[in-house]
Amino acid sequence: MPILCRPAVMVPEHVISMERTLELARQLHSDHPRLDLVLWLIENTGVRQRHLVRPIAETLRHPGFEARNAAYEQEARQRVPAVVHVALASAGLDVADVDAIIFVSCTGFLMPSMTAWMINRMGFRNDTRQIPIAQLGCAAGGAAINRAGEFCLAYPTANVLIVACEFCSLCYQPTDDGVGNLLSNGLFGDAVAAAVVRGQGGHGVQLERNGSFLVPDTEEWISYAVRETGFHFQLDKRVPATMPMLAPALRTLASSHGWDASDLDFYIIHAGGPRILDDLRDILGVDPAFFRFSRATLTDYGNIASAVVLDSLRRLFEDDTLEHGARGLIAGFGPGITAETCVGTWSRAVRGGRGGRGGGGGSDR
Amino acid sequence: MPILCRPAVMVPEHVISMERTLELARQLHSDHPRLDLVLWLIENTGVRQRHLVRPIAETLRHPGFEARNAAYEQEARQRVPAVVHVALASAGLDVADVDAIIFVSCTGFLMPSMTAWMINRMGFRNDTRQIPIAQLGCAAGGAAINRAGEFCLAYPTANVLIVACEFCSLCYQPTDDGVGNLLSNGLFGDAVAAAVVRGQGGHGVQLERNGSFLVPDTEEWISYAVRETGFHFQLDKRVPATMPMLAPALRTLASSHGWDASDLDFYIIHAGGPRILDDLRDILGVDPAFFRFSRATLTDYGNIASAVVLDSLRRLFEDDTLEHGARGLIAGFGPGITAETCVGTWSRAVRGGRGGRGGGGGSDR
Repeated sequence: MPILCRPAVMVPEHVISMERTLELARQLHSDHPRLDLVLWLIENTGVRQRHLVRPIAETLRHPGFEARNAAYEQEARQRVPAVVHVALASAGLDVADVDAIIFVSCTGFLMPSMTAWMINRMGFRNDTRQIPIAQLGCAAGGAAINRAGEFCLAYPTANVLIVACEFCSLCYQPTDDGVGNLLSNGLFGDAVAAAVVRGQGGHGVQLERNGSFLVPDTEEWISYAVRETGFHFQLDKRVPATMPMLAPALRTLASSHGWDASDLDFYIIHAGGPRILDDLRDILGVDPAFFRFSRATLTDYGNIASAVVLDSLRRLFEDDTLEHGARGLIAGFGPGITAETCVGTWSRAVRGGRGGRGGGGGSDR
Repeated sequence: MPILCRPAVMVPEHVISMERTLELARQLHSDHPRLDLVLWLIENTGVRQRHLVRPIAETLRHPGFEARNAAYEQEARQRVPAVVHVALASAGLDVADVDAIIFVSCTGFLMPSMTAWMINRMGFRNDTRQIPIAQLGCAAGGAAINRAGEFCLAYPTANVLIVACEFCSLCYQPTDDGVGNLLSNGLFGDAVAAAVVRGQGGHGVQLERNGSFLVPDTEEWISYAVRETGFHFQLDKRVPATMPMLAPALRTLASSHGWDASDLDFYIIHAGGPRILDDLRDILGVDPAFFRFSRATLTDYGNIASAVVLDSLRRLFEDDTLEHGARGLIAGFGPGITAETCVGTWSRAVRGGRGGRGGGGGSDR
């Protein structure tokens, strides 16, 4: 059974506090007819600070889509390798042991994908499968975990590297001033996360069953408008209230595995906003303490898109209180509106070593 | 073992002949210092005609990236369903039998992906996995087949729908006048292709082993520049000579399966240009007649990006001369430079029925 190992996460050095965010909103949109609502929404995100790849003054200027995408490429090349090396070390693997790279990112667009650059510059084997996914937004974190698990089901000795690289600040659009846009400007942050799914060996979350669910007719609720100025994030005001539509998918997945979604030992949830966690607490009847890892990600980093689930999972590993065999659920949510979810059990390190090399990368296939 | 069933392909109604292409090149670039070379290159593509989603006069105007991407979305929604229905019917399946949609396309960018629209509007199950891939270019046709095969290895009763939707004409950039650009303007065409990979049942190519190979340090050879005006295709003049670098990957894959890449019964090759087939013929020492399906795609439709391998395969099905158990190879090539290849055997229809419903879509997982 595939094991999702300890994620590594790095956030950039330019920090913007909640206070500074509110100050900027007041300053930049002083004549906005719904400024009070915007400020109230931002304050209620629960985000304390966010980390950005570029200084705030630079982030606020739009240098054009071409320069933005070039900045994305430059920052990705600069920041991805270190995170990947930590994730590989946590999994007890070397670059040469990786059989597939699933690179998820919706905040820049490169062809060839970053996977080609990583193979060329980081020493991955030239036969490493490249699986870049750009169009699943925040749900891509869950999707990457699920596709990595399936790759290891197909090739039981394989190792899959997941990278979630999200520089949301590079999609800041100064001219977008809808309430949803201004809220998003105060909600999203930047981060790079990586984790390895091992077909054999390792410890962490044993991936046992996954599911995807599209909420009918909600395509317009979270979307990109693609324009000369790049990707324009569009957030419908109905989005915060989607948990009643998504929670049944979590219940169904848990039930199909013989489990009760209300009675698990850990929950790693895409905390896109505070309401997700509050509603899920109420709908599932779960003690909010179970969501502390997801909430901490939101508080410390903001919504870091597809990297949220990996960062919350990193915090679960650091907490280090789960018993071997503890049952849990991972859920990514994003445009579609899509839920990418999985259930699995906590698998502690075998005494005498955590991880260790597996079956040689499954070279014979 | 997964079976890749008969593909369906549709090309748009606006046809541009080789003669018209040359005429336009002469007209639009009359003062180009290397016009003679450009015309020679275009004439030597072997492309007789191409099909475009919009009339030629409209294609030649650039209405801006936003309008281009909106046209992409409109054309995709209009043209994808019919192709998908034919592919499903050929596989003996209904929309509700599909467990995953792999949607590959590098000529437009939508978030949510077309997969969400297809689930909402075409009756696919809401738990259908969405796997949109935009960053693998022409190699995505091979990648889609390989990832679909792996999904069926992970879930042996699953069915995966592959869609390759390429409207290359919507990436035409009037201001790009490098020799590579002008050649590309005479080479690429539009098409929508679809095929089903069935975990059980069906007939076609049994997918037995796949591989990916990145040619070291060739990232810049085929790439997009992402600009305010959209995706700008960049083609290095070294690209036509890449087969000596890619052919060893085909040999390695065949050998690892106990086969000789020079001695197979069928070859489905991404015919990005004529030189690929000529060089492969020489390197592998294969009778050029084996490449007739790939060459026919190039001649009739031009380079239709990720759809080439599916269209060549469609022609192989129509030819209908292979014996059960015939051994063959499928190879997609694209940016990276990446080869996505697989080997498998021809599996004829079981007497008394071709295809037929499989294991109920693998709902229990």
